Amino acid sequence: MTKVTAQMSISLDGHYAGPRHDGTGSWIDSAEAAGFYRITRWVIDGAAWRGRQGFQGGKDDVDAAIIGETFEAAGAYVMGRNMADGGEVPWGDEPPFRAPVFVVTHRPREVLRRKGGTSFTYVTDGVASAVEQARAVAGGKDVAISGGGTLLRQVIKAGLLDELELHIVPTVLGTGMRLFDADLDLAVKEAIELTPIRVVQSPRVTHIRYRIDGREPLVLDDRGRGSGTPGTDTP
Amino acid sequence: MTKVTAQMSISLDGHYAGPRHDGTGSWIDSAEAAGFYRITRWVIDGAAWRGRQGFQGGKDDVDAAIIGETFEAAGAYVMGRNMADGGEVPWGDEPPFRAPVFVVTHRPREVLRRKGGTSFTYVTDGVASAVEQARAVAGGKDVAISGGGTLLRQVIKAGLLDELELHIVPTVLGTGMRLFDADLDLAVKEAIELTPIRVVQSPRVTHIRYRIDGREPLVLDDRGRGSGTPGTDTP
Repeated sequence: MTKVTAQMSISLDGHYAGPRHDGTGSWIDSAEAAGFYRITRWVIDGAAWRGRQGFQGGKDDVDAAIIGETFEAAGAYVMGRNMADGGEVPWGDEPPFRAPVFVVTHRPREVLRRKGGTSFTYVTDGVASAVEQARAVAGGKDVAISGGGTLLRQVIKAGLLDELELHIVPTVLGTGMRLFDADLDLAVKEAIELTPIRVVQSPRVTHIRYRIDGREPLVLDDRGRGSGTPGTDTP
Repeated sequence: MTKVTAQMSISLDGHYAGPRHDGTGSWIDSAEAAGFYRITRWVIDGAAWRGRQGFQGGKDDVDAAIIGETFEAAGAYVMGRNMADGGEVPWGDEPPFRAPVFVVTHRPREVLRRKGGTSFTYVTDGVASAVEQARAVAGGKDVAISGGGTLLRQVIKAGLLDELELHIVPTVLGTGMRLFDADLDLAVKEAIELTPIRVVQSPRVTHIRYRIDGREPLVLDDRGRGSGTPGTDTP
């Protein structure tokens, strides 16, 4: 059954890149790029990613296996316009997706077909529509939300995400672009609850896959003093 | 050999409590408390914590084992004044620490001795002094930095922390008090690097223990195109 999934590499303090580039100088010299490169280094070093990019070598370890599995599981992708635009040149004639990609955007554009099975369809009627179009062509595989963070938050906010896999990189950037920003529209004393369903560890990154259970009110307990914590008290 | 360690329970989005209580109404009714209770619930439900508080029952699972281990490893504690003041009444005559506690504060106060081996010594000449005083009486066990977040950031910023164990609770609060705030004094393109040395998983919380390696400059790689990524390229 098709699930809607997302992957994101983040620092220990929740950033997926350094502070947003303000347009001064080139992006590659920015603190945003320096943070982004650090957070995604484990991907770049993996043989599975390199193979999809046409590069040789790379590590064939537990981290690389996660990347390979992620590519295999996806039957279609949903992506933000910033990421699609930023990738258009570096991904070249044969992008690594090898599946239909639906780009959420306000600017209409004709479908862009690339070698190896990748196509980019520009969806102007919202993220829910993009997810539905991706689901229709995923062939029973997963719909993978590919980022960036703003799109992923939209998908979470709309209650469309089934599973989220975080790749937690052991570095603290201090400042930067946060995956979980304050725009999730949570009410006071409301949280989004999840359940960890798989943890894979390596010296370079901790991979935690979560099932998203949904919004729940935050309730108090009696801090263990009485019988108010169901199932945990011995009378 | 004595290590300086810290433990912190945080939400998936890095908060250890809800948004700071502004003093309106009672703390227990605040969003800060609602978030704090959610994040620390796994501790409250553990038999090891309940035993130290004089409460009966509780779960005796992998999470409780982590709490027991944490209490056992600590020979002395360092704590912020807010946490010490907030705990003074609820901890009662026999606080759960059973070891000397050094409280970092600007306000001098006489040593407070409690039953069961716990004492509170108020240190007015800074966090480094508190850590040194704790180390001197830890008897070869660890010095545990007990929070809150502001104190823990001071200790990290001063380069005094050897190990950090994060207990990542599968909930997203959206807003609140963050462990990793922007006041770590990191330079542009500088990060604090860590190495995960133990991961313990449960359905309720993921425990990751990190060794803190220190500050490092963020450097770019060639994204796999050439020979610039040492050890990963096949010529």
